[in-house]
Amino acid sequence: MSPVPTRRLDRLKLGAFHYVSGHHVAAWRHPLASVDDSLRDYVAFARTAEAAKFDAVFLADSVGIRLNLPASVSRNPHSGVTPFEPLTLLSAIAGHTSRIGLVATASTSFSDPYNLARQFASLDRLSAGRAGWNLVTTQEPEVALNFGHAAPVPHAKRYERAEEFADVVLGLWDSFEDDAFLRDRVSGKYYDPRKLHQLNHHGEHFQVRGPLNAPRPPQGRPVVIQAGSSEPGKELAARTAEVIFTAQQTLEEATSFYADVKGRLAKYGRSPDDLKIMPGAFIVTARTEAEAQEKFEELQGLVQPEVGLELLRTHLGVDLSGHPLDGPLPPLPEIAGGKSRQALVADLAQRENLSIRELYLRIAGARGHWQLVGSGEQIADQLEERFLNYGADGFNLMSPILPGGLTDFIDFVLPELRRRGLFRTEYEGRTLRENLGLSRPENRHVARRSVAAE
Amino acid sequence: MSPVPTRRLDRLKLGAFHYVSGHHVAAWRHPLASVDDSLRDYVAFARTAEAAKFDAVFLADSVGIRLNLPASVSRNPHSGVTPFEPLTLLSAIAGHTSRIGLVATASTSFSDPYNLARQFASLDRLSAGRAGWNLVTTQEPEVALNFGHAAPVPHAKRYERAEEFADVVLGLWDSFEDDAFLRDRVSGKYYDPRKLHQLNHHGEHFQVRGPLNAPRPPQGRPVVIQAGSSEPGKELAARTAEVIFTAQQTLEEATSFYADVKGRLAKYGRSPDDLKIMPGAFIVTARTEAEAQEKFEELQGLVQPEVGLELLRTHLGVDLSGHPLDGPLPPLPEIAGGKSRQALVADLAQRENLSIRELYLRIAGARGHWQLVGSGEQIADQLEERFLNYGADGFNLMSPILPGGLTDFIDFVLPELRRRGLFRTEYEGRTLRENLGLSRPENRHVARRSVAAE
Repeated sequence: MSPVPTRRLDRLKLGAFHYVSGHHVAAWRHPLASVDDSLRDYVAFARTAEAAKFDAVFLADSVGIRLNLPASVSRNPHSGVTPFEPLTLLSAIAGHTSRIGLVATASTSFSDPYNLARQFASLDRLSAGRAGWNLVTTQEPEVALNFGHAAPVPHAKRYERAEEFADVVLGLWDSFEDDAFLRDRVSGKYYDPRKLHQLNHHGEHFQVRGPLNAPRPPQGRPVVIQAGSSEPGKELAARTAEVIFTAQQTLEEATSFYADVKGRLAKYGRSPDDLKIMPGAFIVTARTEAEAQEKFEELQGLVQPEVGLELLRTHLGVDLSGHPLDGPLPPLPEIAGGKSRQALVADLAQRENLSIRELYLRIAGARGHWQLVGSGEQIADQLEERFLNYGADGFNLMSPILPGGLTDFIDFVLPELRRRGLFRTEYEGRTLRENLGLSRPENRHVARRSVAAE
Repeated sequence: MSPVPTRRLDRLKLGAFHYVSGHHVAAWRHPLASVDDSLRDYVAFARTAEAAKFDAVFLADSVGIRLNLPASVSRNPHSGVTPFEPLTLLSAIAGHTSRIGLVATASTSFSDPYNLARQFASLDRLSAGRAGWNLVTTQEPEVALNFGHAAPVPHAKRYERAEEFADVVLGLWDSFEDDAFLRDRVSGKYYDPRKLHQLNHHGEHFQVRGPLNAPRPPQGRPVVIQAGSSEPGKELAARTAEVIFTAQQTLEEATSFYADVKGRLAKYGRSPDDLKIMPGAFIVTARTEAEAQEKFEELQGLVQPEVGLELLRTHLGVDLSGHPLDGPLPPLPEIAGGKSRQALVADLAQRENLSIRELYLRIAGARGHWQLVGSGEQIADQLEERFLNYGADGFNLMSPILPGGLTDFIDFVLPELRRRGLFRTEYEGRTLRENLGLSRPENRHVARRSVAAE
């Protein structure tokens, strides 16, 4: 596929994905990593990203700690411990920033659509239109036990629930029309009751009458982000998402995923521009390729074998503690269908004949996401190639170490992207939606009336 | 009961209870009321209260809009519409304040203990130990319909669930011991796994394994506030609450409630000081009594009959729209046991032979809370009397109109209270717990070990 010339007119979008001391599993052990995980660190991260004109900060989330191998897990801050919960944290960050989008991950598996719709509407209001919801489902059995589920919810059920959850939340955000509030002291009318709508949702998973007890969010609706790469995940995204945070390794995979998902939009009455595809990119960069490589090796050298084995246990579902680290992988148990992460990692080990240590080092950084190590120019080349060839509309930056990984990207890669006209020098708008180039959706009840009146 | 002399050594506690344009139902129609309900208004409220050394700001909450009489309800901002959700809003306010406590109302009826424990732990951390949880149950049938309940949950069931909910949340906050996090880069130990504890709660309403994926909150646990005045409510408070937000009209009621609840503490191994009783006080004040009375009448004059009737419908459960406003109340249907709010209002009407209009004006301000109108000195006299006679440890100030009602209290009543040595001139501590004079609870797992080692 050759680059389409008009693509040059677009700018790519950038998310700044925060993850404790950095996305590399051993980042926290590096002397330059922030390790306190304090509010100050998060605020500094958001302000740095805003000064560089990133579209959004992006917070992952977990609603439980992995405890498979308790002693190993306790050596890994990526095991689900989070000092802050994303919605409260981003509400705090909102006041320290003014333009950058604030994206919180929240699972549909173990929360309630009414409460969640309220909280995102509230974040959107207090940030003046900068909220985004990264809609995920949760599969970890460890987490299900925190919510009364003895067994994890099967994949299909999770997606069914997620579909219905999203419908309820989107519907609730339209409860009030934008101009419903009159606050007319003289007439005594606080809002116009004709501009308030019940949802009356009766589904398999939820019964929600509504209306939501909050004005329509400033963005109409907070931007909805999804990560699913499975068949139901892609379909859900095509129907409801406005950004996809995905993981593709090669250009071929990326362009084929891009074409696949964008091709599904038409049947939902949406145009390709209504959905931005922003894969994760784990980027180690420095002044020169050699320096970047050195940085990466330094982090790799800090990976503890216990943590490496725990990573493999999480990715493969087997405990390899008994085996020599520098020996080959033992034969793995049959992998059940659908467990694509396991299959991927096992495949990699066999194809490249990796030792146990080599294998866990392969996933210690990007965890299956695209991994790039190089000078600013080299990184810019690769991002540009993927962007121009319609493999991505932008990227969600996974800094190997924080705060240094973010500032390295800003210092070495961004100037190069800007020189090529690929990234903004100033925000285009005030809301996340405006900066991402997404239109503000009309309230469904207003839309219905317009159609009826035609 | 005569004042006990040592009481003079205590200082009373003050909460600043925010409610849209003010607690008077017609406040929003007054030209001096803030009516936009913007983040700026909330922040200004919190900063004003902090400058005056209030212990906490206090936010009510609702998870639904009353829709009994849609047109009337739309004339009343107290009908459940909230532009912000309390946990996200207080997270935003945290950064604009540094000492004042941040109390969010959250219902145990329609939320999940794991998610709620995380969010309060997060608020406590990002405010450096200033979070409080006003634990309520929700009875409104209108609200239940937003969460898949066709019928409201019966009172006893709600309290059973609340008891268990509180146990789970308190248990989850103790998941990590205070010194569990080592973050030792050299040894690679992020936390000490021996200082992480599963909850393994198996109850009737909840199955929660835990642990919570967050460090122990700075306060050990956010301060738990309760409002229940019913028998199970008082019992739950005696066992788990640290502040009671209650409604008592007369000194006799107040002292008897105070003695009753404080007397229940011993059986749970708690001392009377472990629980602060802070009734609501709706206070209209000014330079003189006459001016205060005038302010109050001005607000009363703004009450719309539709809104008055809707208030009566909410309090009595009957629609009186057909009857002349200045005529007597028609005979009311038999009132079922336990509906004490209805009985109270019906009783008041009959005892004082009130017209419909007179009755709704009676509840338009304080909604059943203590209502005081007078000069600063008069108000101070009444608060002092109730405080010195052990009818209250402090008060939750319900300003009739905002922001003016709060500043009136600060200008006219606070100097008088301070002159009498009844209120602080500077914060005693940094956390809400410290300012309220509540000790920081030891982690239960540490406590158990200490006992075992003795």
